[in-house]
Amino acid sequence: MSTFGNKIKVTVFGESHGNGIGAVIDGTPAGYKIDMDKILVQMSRRAPGKDKTATPRVEKDYPNIKSGILNDVTTGAPICCVIENTNTQSGDYSNLLNVPRPGHSDYTAYVKYQGCNDIRGGGHFSGRLTAPIVFAGSIFRQILEEKGIKISAHISSIGNVDDESFDSVNINAELMDRLSTSTFPLIDQGKEEQMRQVVEDARMSLDSVGGTVECIVTGMPVGVGGPLFEGIEGQIAKAMFGIPAVKGIEFGKGFESAKLKGSENNDSFEYKDGKVVTSTNNCGGILGGISNGMPITFKIAIKPTPSISRQQNSVNLQSKENDKLVVKGRHDPCIVPRAVPVVEAMTAIAIFDLL
Amino acid sequence: MSTFGNKIKVTVFGESHGNGIGAVIDGTPAGYKIDMDKILVQMSRRAPGKDKTATPRVEKDYPNIKSGILNDVTTGAPICCVIENTNTQSGDYSNLLNVPRPGHSDYTAYVKYQGCNDIRGGGHFSGRLTAPIVFAGSIFRQILEEKGIKISAHISSIGNVDDESFDSVNINAELMDRLSTSTFPLIDQGKEEQMRQVVEDARMSLDSVGGTVECIVTGMPVGVGGPLFEGIEGQIAKAMFGIPAVKGIEFGKGFESAKLKGSENNDSFEYKDGKVVTSTNNCGGILGGISNGMPITFKIAIKPTPSISRQQNSVNLQSKENDKLVVKGRHDPCIVPRAVPVVEAMTAIAIFDLL
Amino acid sequence: MSTFGNKIKVTVFGESHGNGIGAVIDGTPAGYKIDMDKILVQMSRRAPGKDKTATPRVEKDYPNIKSGILNDVTTGAPICCVIENTNTQSGDYSNLLNVPRPGHSDYTAYVKYQGCNDIRGGGHFSGRLTAPIVFAGSIFRQILEEKGIKISAHISSIGNVDDESFDSVNINAELMDRLSTSTFPLIDQGKEEQMRQVVEDARMSLDSVGGTVECIVTGMPVGVGGPLFEGIEGQIAKAMFGIPAVKGIEFGKGFESAKLKGSENNDSFEYKDGKVVTSTNNCGGILGGISNGMPITFKIAIKPTPSISRQQNSVNLQSKENDKLVVKGRHDPCIVPRAVPVVEAMTAIAIFDLL
Amino acid sequence: MSTFGNKIKVTVFGESHGNGIGAVIDGTPAGYKIDMDKILVQMSRRAPGKDKTATPRVEKDYPNIKSGILNDVTTGAPICCVIENTNTQSGDYSNLLNVPRPGHSDYTAYVKYQGCNDIRGGGHFSGRLTAPIVFAGSIFRQILEEKGIKISAHISSIGNVDDESFDSVNINAELMDRLSTSTFPLIDQGKEEQMRQVVEDARMSLDSVGGTVECIVTGMPVGVGGPLFEGIEGQIAKAMFGIPAVKGIEFGKGFESAKLKGSENNDSFEYKDGKVVTSTNNCGGILGGISNGMPITFKIAIKPTPSISRQQNSVNLQSKENDKLVVKGRHDPCIVPRAVPVVEAMTAIAIFDLL
Repeated sequence: MSTFGNKIKVTVFGESHGNGIGAVIDGTPAGYKIDMDKILVQMSRRAPGKDKTATPRVEKDYPNIKSGILNDVTTGAPICCVIENTNTQSGDYSNLLNVPRPGHSDYTAYVKYQGCNDIRGGGHFSGRLTAPIVFAGSIFRQILEEKGIKISAHISSIGNVDDESFDSVNINAELMDRLSTSTFPLIDQGKEEQMRQVVEDARMSLDSVGGTVECIVTGMPVGVGGPLFEGIEGQIAKAMFGIPAVKGIEFGKGFESAKLKGSENNDSFEYKDGKVVTSTNNCGGILGGISNGMPITFKIAIKPTPSISRQQNSVNLQSKENDKLVVKGRHDPCIVPRAVPVVEAMTAIAIFDLL
Repeated sequence: MSTFGNKIKVTVFGESHGNGIGAVIDGTPAGYKIDMDKILVQMSRRAPGKDKTATPRVEKDYPNIKSGILNDVTTGAPICCVIENTNTQSGDYSNLLNVPRPGHSDYTAYVKYQGCNDIRGGGHFSGRLTAPIVFAGSIFRQILEEKGIKISAHISSIGNVDDESFDSVNINAELMDRLSTSTFPLIDQGKEEQMRQVVEDARMSLDSVGGTVECIVTGMPVGVGGPLFEGIEGQIAKAMFGIPAVKGIEFGKGFESAKLKGSENNDSFEYKDGKVVTSTNNCGGILGGISNGMPITFKIAIKPTPSISRQQNSVNLQSKENDKLVVKGRHDPCIVPRAVPVVEAMTAIAIFDLL
Repeated sequence: MSTFGNKIKVTVFGESHGNGIGAVIDGTPAGYKIDMDKILVQMSRRAPGKDKTATPRVEKDYPNIKSGILNDVTTGAPICCVIENTNTQSGDYSNLLNVPRPGHSDYTAYVKYQGCNDIRGGGHFSGRLTAPIVFAGSIFRQILEEKGIKISAHISSIGNVDDESFDSVNINAELMDRLSTSTFPLIDQGKEEQMRQVVEDARMSLDSVGGTVECIVTGMPVGVGGPLFEGIEGQIAKAMFGIPAVKGIEFGKGFESAKLKGSENNDSFEYKDGKVVTSTNNCGGILGGISNGMPITFKIAIKPTPSISRQQNSVNLQSKENDKLVVKGRHDPCIVPRAVPVVEAMTAIAIFDLL
Repeated sequence: MSTFGNKIKVTVFGESHGNGIGAVIDGTPAGYKIDMDKILVQMSRRAPGKDKTATPRVEKDYPNIKSGILNDVTTGAPICCVIENTNTQSGDYSNLLNVPRPGHSDYTAYVKYQGCNDIRGGGHFSGRLTAPIVFAGSIFRQILEEKGIKISAHISSIGNVDDESFDSVNINAELMDRLSTSTFPLIDQGKEEQMRQVVEDARMSLDSVGGTVECIVTGMPVGVGGPLFEGIEGQIAKAMFGIPAVKGIEFGKGFESAKLKGSENNDSFEYKDGKVVTSTNNCGGILGGISNGMPITFKIAIKPTPSISRQQNSVNLQSKENDKLVVKGRHDPCIVPRAVPVVEAMTAIAIFDLL
């Protein structure tokens, strides 16, 4: 299913080179004022064609709202937004019908859909489907902000170049705001040039490169989530793995905590300004699947873009023989910067659904 | 909710020191023969009291089947199993009502349930609730095995001691069988002594230690799962974060792939014995959220047991002052070995729900 | 699935002649005091063996609560209750394996479960499975009553003998209380003898008889439910058809309104004591799927018990020939009186799930 | 929620006088050829403006397919269709903001959405929202027909004029085909004039009139559905109450069976052409919630259109006083004929979701 959520239902539709893509959002509460400009800022962060890290395909990505918002206010009825596909060069993908691209869904989709799926541009598997996710997430993000909940993410690493990590005990709200509107969001902006060089090196060698994104959510009330399958970790993880190319997630110290002693990993409680807080935040703001009031933090791993211009080994599904493949078309040598607003948007959807 | 699944619904109930715990499994197909001995083997692997890595609390953990199985065959009606709680020493937990244990759900549950939750032994948040998960998983595992799908996991690390990783291209079925019945499952059995020493050191210093578990699923048909929120990764991740103490998950190369180039990370397709396979398996058997027929592999991070016998800093929720806490009661210095059958069981539930 | 609800999940398990039956209730809020005596009153209203309208099978029907309630207060964790099956005479049903009873699920269950379902006493299809529904409903009913929402139902007709209808504009709370504890609940108690005679006549002629039940819900806040598939009617209808033998449902004037003019059927609005009310209540308290603050009323049709002691025409599924059948065992000549508390309970579950 | 289904998810969006309405259908299998002309036939049956029984508002109702269908074949990705709203006269509805129409959702929606819902033309509650339902149903109907499952409905009554009932034991396939393309579908076509007169009388007296629709489903395989909350009755009922103005539903003999003896109501089994059939079909093809292979039959009650041109009593929500109201705008004096294709479509969606 392309539908996410329990209390809300966000359904993403469309194929990369079809008539249009979009989302239907069922379950939005009535009466929230939505700022369209803020939505466009987020959609623009995700949109391709801005610089050399991204595919040169340029799309207007303008969300036409069909329903659910009247005079900029949510009506409580489902919100539908449609984004037309205007700049499609479908001829590029003809050879993929028989020879699946390594690292892509071509082969698995071919089997699942018996060859009837729209292969052009990856069809429904395309990264382009993250545009309606950003639209939907921007709606929920604005509602969450009215409740005092803020979400921010940054490029945590590209290849072997790391940014700093969030200070998850005393996070700076201004930093969060800066990151949330940046197209190359870094805590340590001095790392930008180095990271861009890694991407450019990959591009010049007809290759691509992966990275990680770290996300933080502040202002969470204590007591959201629940034990077992109601936990915040499971909810956010399910949301994040809905983003193409995500291959791992960890909360708080995550895999590092697996190497620690209990005495090192436990976060002590203390009173601060009359509120219960923890002195450290190794648990990423979640205990027993439930928010403890500290910032929620998690990091996701994004694999390198599988579309590369080098020749690769593959198979020919018609002749049933091994074959070679050079992927034509327009690709991102690194999708990590464009993934940041998608991570924020998907987090907004997941968190809102829990509240 | 304590309910998992879409096509099936597994609901886990019970509190650590209540009358009983158990599971109701709705949606099991009729006509499958269930081997009770195989279930008991798995429950025994998870049960406490076997050696010094685990809590000395001894429970019979015998699953009383109330419904859904007649003459060892599934009837198609919901299966209910109840495990009585027999060996409870509730006096141990009285001081936790006011002073929450660091790293535990005491504080967050207190807020969420307004102090009405059963605090004794962690209540519904107790690791003891994984016993019915192992029961439910053992049912589905037996059905999956009839379909040629096998699941196996091992202790991938404890503290800084690592086991080998699975060979995810040519996995050995005998190795999988050995691991699936072992109480300290390791690929490289030479690491057992070293790992046990790490646990013993933690225990002697009134501390605990975390670790990782790697899991593999073989025999998956091609084409299971789907794009966006129907993906296998999201489904398995949601299941794994339902296990207490899990703080991270990665599929295939996971976080390592974030440092790779596309040319290094892409798995080439080739024909082998008339079937499409990949030469490497960095994607962990999943492309576009869909199984590609290679083994599915993933690794989870388990934090060190938060219950430690050392004095820790906490707060007193009644007096609203900082306080100190020494956790009494019986604890596991390392839950990683006992977590292995839980990971296998939860994987069986998640995979069955997808088919 | 044997699971009901969106915000809550009530799963009913068990087979008529298996080890036990029961329910698991996931999603109950913490902190509600539950009066066990009130639960037992409702379970006793449903229980068989009270008089000649019902099957002589006597069951204690005592609900053993395994979890979710501590010191009579809900903990917020799933509530599991198990009712042991003690008075089973399984020999009675042996001939049903091959010759399905007309009007029963024997044939359809045989096909669906490939003959593996538990046929004894109807197995999971037995009316006995309404006992855990009454248990679950009694829990939610007590919580609803704290919120000012009351539910009451009565025998609206048995055969051709009709009781009066509820006055759905000015319903009397004392009447509701009287009905809610009665084992033969009638508005016009003068009809009891006549109705009992209809049942006795059916019993003496080795036959059975159907009837209708009318239910009312008062104290509903305005604005619950929603358009399209979120409507109260759909939610209650889904719940009612979960009760065995229900074949129809109508809200407010229901099928009669299909014969009316708009000017006759529309309920005018007016202010009364500062509140918006309607002068009539033909819509049964629901407009556009949403509660309008007036009492919700609906009526359900219950078919005559299909188990009758007369010889009936059937088939032999083994020999594949036509056959005759005399159903042995203990039957209710009329289940309508025992269905009333089940309707009330199921309504409580459905309404609670909407709030 | 405006979302229906478990295995499939159909989400209906839009407001009567907004930018557009439509549906997103998630979960359609890949590889089915869809005949657009057949869809348009069904949409045209539902569309207004055909004759004097319906509102004079004329809409093109052309479904623009944005995704999920490529070269007339389903791709397996979500299908989105958008229908533009072109002929809106929003000025008509301005006085409804304060004075709710009796029998309509104006008041309940006002409370639920705090006055933020789109009141124009009924907004998301409008009967216009059944257009996307017909679109979605037409897709599933075509797939069901490939599996041998046919659906047909007719006007069973308008006011006090009744059509014949289906012969649910030996239904004629040609009759079903005739009904399925008719705009005034009757078994006994001799009743058309009489029914049209009833509608015309209502119209001339500034009133409206209700009716019933009977539906039949043939070709159902035995064994679909299940006990308790998995039953076919509950699934279809939930679907039908999603259609505005439906106030009752009964399966097979329904409310009439409540007056019968078991010996009259039970359907005997017999072998016919080697297949198990029943001699009568009082149960409407469903036993224990499961299809028995006989045609499924049910009847729904549709209340008279609440929009009438007569003056009615209402309240003014601003001044909080009683008020009078004359509903302006264009109304159907009887929606029953236009409801028939909606019932068929919604049945197709509900049945497909069960398979």
